[in-house]
Amino acid sequence: MQLVSEGREVSWSEGQSLSRSYYTSASIFELEFRKVVQNQWLLVDHISRIPKPGDFFLFDVGRENVIIIRQSDSEIGAFYNVCRHRGSRVCITREGSVKALTCPYHAWSYRLDGSLRVAPMMREGFEKQAHGLIPLHLRVFEGFLFINMSKSTPSQFETFVDRYRPWLEPAQLDKAKVVIRRNYPTTANWKLVVENFVECYHCGPAHATYSFVHDRLKLRALGAGMRSGSDNDIKKYGPILRAWEKTAIACGYPVGNFADGPDSESLQGGGRAPIGGERKTETSKGEPAAPLLGSFKEYDGGRTVAHFNPFSCLFVNNDFAVSVRFTPRSEAATDVEAIWLVREDAVEGHDYDPEELSFVWDTTLREDCVLAENNQLGVNSCVYEPGPHSYLEGRISDFIAWYLRKL
Amino acid sequence: MQLVSEGREVSWSEGQSLSRSYYTSASIFELEFRKVVQNQWLLVDHISRIPKPGDFFLFDVGRENVIIIRQSDSEIGAFYNVCRHRGSRVCITREGSVKALTCPYHAWSYRLDGSLRVAPMMREGFEKQAHGLIPLHLRVFEGFLFINMSKSTPSQFETFVDRYRPWLEPAQLDKAKVVIRRNYPTTANWKLVVENFVECYHCGPAHATYSFVHDRLKLRALGAGMRSGSDNDIKKYGPILRAWEKTAIACGYPVGNFADGPDSESLQGGGRAPIGGERKTETSKGEPAAPLLGSFKEYDGGRTVAHFNPFSCLFVNNDFAVSVRFTPRSEAATDVEAIWLVREDAVEGHDYDPEELSFVWDTTLREDCVLAENNQLGVNSCVYEPGPHSYLEGRISDFIAWYLRKL
Amino acid sequence: MQLVSEGREVSWSEGQSLSRSYYTSASIFELEFRKVVQNQWLLVDHISRIPKPGDFFLFDVGRENVIIIRQSDSEIGAFYNVCRHRGSRVCITREGSVKALTCPYHAWSYRLDGSLRVAPMMREGFEKQAHGLIPLHLRVFEGFLFINMSKSTPSQFETFVDRYRPWLEPAQLDKAKVVIRRNYPTTANWKLVVENFVECYHCGPAHATYSFVHDRLKLRALGAGMRSGSDNDIKKYGPILRAWEKTAIACGYPVGNFADGPDSESLQGGGRAPIGGERKTETSKGEPAAPLLGSFKEYDGGRTVAHFNPFSCLFVNNDFAVSVRFTPRSEAATDVEAIWLVREDAVEGHDYDPEELSFVWDTTLREDCVLAENNQLGVNSCVYEPGPHSYLEGRISDFIAWYLRKL
Repeated sequence: MQLVSEGREVSWSEGQSLSRSYYTSASIFELEFRKVVQNQWLLVDHISRIPKPGDFFLFDVGRENVIIIRQSDSEIGAFYNVCRHRGSRVCITREGSVKALTCPYHAWSYRLDGSLRVAPMMREGFEKQAHGLIPLHLRVFEGFLFINMSKSTPSQFETFVDRYRPWLEPAQLDKAKVVIRRNYPTTANWKLVVENFVECYHCGPAHATYSFVHDRLKLRALGAGMRSGSDNDIKKYGPILRAWEKTAIACGYPVGNFADGPDSESLQGGGRAPIGGERKTETSKGEPAAPLLGSFKEYDGGRTVAHFNPFSCLFVNNDFAVSVRFTPRSEAATDVEAIWLVREDAVEGHDYDPEELSFVWDTTLREDCVLAENNQLGVNSCVYEPGPHSYLEGRISDFIAWYLRKL
Repeated sequence: MQLVSEGREVSWSEGQSLSRSYYTSASIFELEFRKVVQNQWLLVDHISRIPKPGDFFLFDVGRENVIIIRQSDSEIGAFYNVCRHRGSRVCITREGSVKALTCPYHAWSYRLDGSLRVAPMMREGFEKQAHGLIPLHLRVFEGFLFINMSKSTPSQFETFVDRYRPWLEPAQLDKAKVVIRRNYPTTANWKLVVENFVECYHCGPAHATYSFVHDRLKLRALGAGMRSGSDNDIKKYGPILRAWEKTAIACGYPVGNFADGPDSESLQGGGRAPIGGERKTETSKGEPAAPLLGSFKEYDGGRTVAHFNPFSCLFVNNDFAVSVRFTPRSEAATDVEAIWLVREDAVEGHDYDPEELSFVWDTTLREDCVLAENNQLGVNSCVYEPGPHSYLEGRISDFIAWYLRKL
Repeated sequence: MQLVSEGREVSWSEGQSLSRSYYTSASIFELEFRKVVQNQWLLVDHISRIPKPGDFFLFDVGRENVIIIRQSDSEIGAFYNVCRHRGSRVCITREGSVKALTCPYHAWSYRLDGSLRVAPMMREGFEKQAHGLIPLHLRVFEGFLFINMSKSTPSQFETFVDRYRPWLEPAQLDKAKVVIRRNYPTTANWKLVVENFVECYHCGPAHATYSFVHDRLKLRALGAGMRSGSDNDIKKYGPILRAWEKTAIACGYPVGNFADGPDSESLQGGGRAPIGGERKTETSKGEPAAPLLGSFKEYDGGRTVAHFNPFSCLFVNNDFAVSVRFTPRSEAATDVEAIWLVREDAVEGHDYDPEELSFVWDTTLREDCVLAENNQLGVNSCVYEPGPHSYLEGRISDFIAWYLRKL
């Protein structure tokens, strides 16, 4: 595969990662931000963070800062945090609740829908309606907020989420609440962070907790979803998966797995599989950590996975859910944030223990942060050359082919 | 208005600020430093900081470090802090008193006038007289030190200051002393800092203290000097100003206001106006904070303003003065320093209280620092576009037109 | 001397230092790293740091990180710290002891000789023998480890060290041990650090301790080795040197001094001279600080110097040795590290006092760090121009001519 970047022709062969400049160059970052990041639906947070009109929070992506704000009981908006007057940030605090978005500099005041309400002492001919805050596309799915920075019409949101409806409906996550939020700022290029997340080849050596909790054969067969394991391991794991699927179907829960190829719009993947052994949920001992979510009536020990695109992933157990997002900030920095959700009526201390709930993924994400940073340090070397991938890293080639096509 | 910068044509329309790259580009900073900053007389400090021969202090401007040193009772010099031997900094401490300027590396020693006195063990043919410290232009006006980094003959200093003589003479600031010094290092482009200082549109929303102390109508009419307010507000404020001017004239104090247009050499402005209400001086309650300055015999409640150029400003009340300077350091950093002056014979604790003296401007400059930094953060966004100015921001257009002409 | 760099022609005259961009430009740093640094034998450390097979430590040079590891009783290897799989750092801890070099990411495991031993689940056709760690050249001389990053055949190591054998043999430093290690990270270009080290013009003004310990006339005559002083001072110092040489010869110790010119491969220099006065060794009072090294039987008060190249230097007294290395990291940063060595059987507290041992050079290197950083600050100025060198700085011209020829 050949493409021209910065006047140089860059080549990539399937079965290996990219060459050094892709992980280090500021100009490639600028380019890929426009071509790859900006046109994707990016999972940002959960609706429970801003329950009342006027509630807002700020979100950083690339060099941009975005205001996410609830406008009414039914509407939520997203705006660039840039005053239309002289460009000041309009919101200074990271989150809060406001009646209007009033710029602290000259008090230009915007309604919750972004339209300009007050701009004192402007000259004749000034048109308020032409100076509202600049919006981004925002949509909500199962309680999750997604933004899209596309300057033209973004890809269909319905197409983006519809396939996940049957998988996510039982958990009713729009009626869940976030009870834990953890940040893992990572000094590494976002593509190294994503490559880490789409293969489970490293799970054995680098994630003792995760490997202890999950069935080892499953991790090899579909540890990072379909297309991430070898045909041989998938074949071996088949009987175990099919046996569990019978239980799940008996409960009325969805089963199956899927993964898009590199020609797809968002490189999606997902499905359901058992955690492993007799485990009911993804905790250290496999014992429930919170009340059953949504319409779940019993534990089938399954976990639903939704890779919406390379920038976000959602894991849903019978009793709690975790979403993880990877937000590119610069060629050398990626924000990683995870949120843990339980039923909105669950009571801390009584119904759930935050430490138990977050143990597996918090441990795993801390480990991933260190792995990605050490990967970046080595890739910076002048002797780095992409080496060959193993059987368990096929999904990286999918990701790179998808990325290069977008670029 | 069109100009070509970095090979791109950049356009600007009166009534709005500049486009993004002017506030973010390192190469534009290099260019403007040579074309705009380097040829201006820059207010640096007050003579009372270095009363005795050998007293010196260091001053940073752009990427340069400058030694300001008293050579004799009547002379003060300015030199680049660079040894002519191998380029070491000659002065390491930020201020002090010396008999000679001796480089700590190889002990090349310069007289207070910058000439090389000792350079041991040099080869035959070495000419001491060709290796003195490299001087900058330095002039003193009413006790204030101004430098000019021009490599050729700088603009006439007399022309630069003469018009301020009648306004400043009564205060006799050459016989004042600095009693407070405060720094407000600001992570913002210097032009955003200057734009903030040449409009009082933000005074209402952002400066509660300043707006409480000053007549609100005055702030709208000439809050940032002449040409900064609307014709309408100036008309409304006329009767108040004229009534006060009678009092000032009766005291024998100067009155009037002026402001240069963008075709001028230094975009100067200045004049006198009452603080407002019954206030005698610019303190929280309007009560005197120090003994009357110079030849002032009574309080007329007026304040003299001198905008020497966009890089400095001086405010003189009947009892104390404040000067503020804005020093460009890089495309993203500006040093802001204010000094407060009182009669040289005033005694702290007895004649003046530093906290009361500095309260209004210290509060205001802290607020301005935050405003400029939030302005920069928003201007960094890819969606930033300069918006239209209000009636109260006319002076920004003067500044930008002046700047672009110089560039 | 003319050369073309970054499309501009740069000129240099003997008897002065380089122009500004050589000390500030990132692109010149990249160029000189390839042309000057990468092909030199760089002193890294002493063999006593890794006594047992599997013992290793990491070494940073430029943007690279290198693993130095003992493979067996008789062999030591050096490898880039970059996994051949996806480029992760293989060693994360700065030093330690291992059975194999196992990458923490996917557990690719390398033998101590760098060859790949285990790479699980690789596809058919994968060749382990083609995926060993990438080695650097490493050689040992008198217990000191030298690496060479040359991509082709490096210059003959034997030629590089052979001339030092007679000078260093009596001290038997291969049987010494490191007892103190100090780092002096310096925010200055490496060439300013080297220039500081090849002249003793600054010793008088800037190194009070060093000047107190050493004969002042010697410092002028050959303070930074042969070719660093004036003919006149060398003549004056001649009788003192010759008188001491008789003593040294009577002891059976080597005498003499030498220095390469700029056309040489490594700009080497060295020799022996007395410390000065009645001093037996290089301590504050001249009294012994440790048991006699190697085959030394008595104190002759002499000190052996070995400038292997501009990047390292070794000083050997009768009782202890110090080596200093200068490692370029970026155009604005240089690592300086010194190690102090005594007989391997010496006992701390009983035979030697670390503070006394390190006092002279630790003091001197701390001072040099400050000098080089202040030199860099001044050289950054737009008015910096290289000034003329004194009689005592002739060795700087040798260094610059050598450097420019290599470039």
